[in-house]
Amino acid sequence: MNVRHLEEADYDPIMAVLDDWFGGRPLAKLLPRIFFIHFRPTSFAIEEDGKVIAFLAGFISQTYADEAYIHFVAVHPDYRGRGLGRRLYSTFFDTVGRLGCSVVRCITSPVNTGSIVFHIRMGFQIEHVTGEHQGAPCTVNHELNGQHRVLFVKRLS
Amino acid sequence: MNVRHLEEADYDPIMAVLDDWFGGRPLAKLLPRIFFIHFRPTSFAIEEDGKVIAFLAGFISQTYADEAYIHFVAVHPDYRGRGLGRRLYSTFFDTVGRLGCSVVRCITSPVNTGSIVFHIRMGFQIEHVTGEHQGAPCTVNHELNGQHRVLFVKRLS
Repeated sequence: MNVRHLEEADYDPIMAVLDDWFGGRPLAKLLPRIFFIHFRPTSFAIEEDGKVIAFLAGFISQTYADEAYIHFVAVHPDYRGRGLGRRLYSTFFDTVGRLGCSVVRCITSPVNTGSIVFHIRMGFQIEHVTGEHQGAPCTVNHELNGQHRVLFVKRLS
Repeated sequence: MNVRHLEEADYDPIMAVLDDWFGGRPLAKLLPRIFFIHFRPTSFAIEEDGKVIAFLAGFISQTYADEAYIHFVAVHPDYRGRGLGRRLYSTFFDTVGRLGCSVVRCITSPVNTGSIVFHIRMGFQIEHVTGEHQGAPCTVNHELNGQHRVLFVKRLS
């Protein structure tokens, strides 16, 4: 399996399958085409047999130059539990570290227990906790319509 | 009226009114909090009496260093037709020009005739035309679910 940069040409094939990867949850709308076009240096795809089976879309903060943000990560359901997420995150950490970042942030939903466990394992800490939702410490009302989010931060060593 | 950078603290008050500004069209979901946090240098707000009445969220491409992108612009309905949009765009052009950009891109919906006229007046050209929707030349199937978009480009002189 080959790790390469995410490209605009990946947008259409990924959009065609993304909601299915999440069991029908409509998450594709969180990922407009601009992430594929304008953040290539810090976005990555893993392919098998010419098809993307996992990808990560991230960028470097333009407000905080030493900080990078992971916006979206997805792994094809048939390829979970094989370390692809870890490989994408490691590639991102190495890349943004070389580009001068010492901090990585990302967020997830309190209901996404698998994601919370994954991030803790990857060395992230939960920050800005202002409440709890379904047992997960989180930042309440972080996004639109009072949606709670778990905010993660990791300091690169 | 004061033009200043857009700040994370603007997120909650803007989200509370944004869909109303667009006559109930649910556009606020296109503007996650990360645009307020991480793209401050190229995002601007205009205030009156301590309230934001217009704003622009944009960034510099990390793939194409000489290119900037305007992601979202909104003007309070009571303040339209007074040149606030023009003022925000001019501030953006000046700022990204100083930061090394020579090209600005943005997109709109083919149904948004006012936006199309505004961009033409601001010196944008329509590019990558592959069809027409409700009389507007556009790029068909540009975004999710076969949504068409009008793609604009302006070269800064």
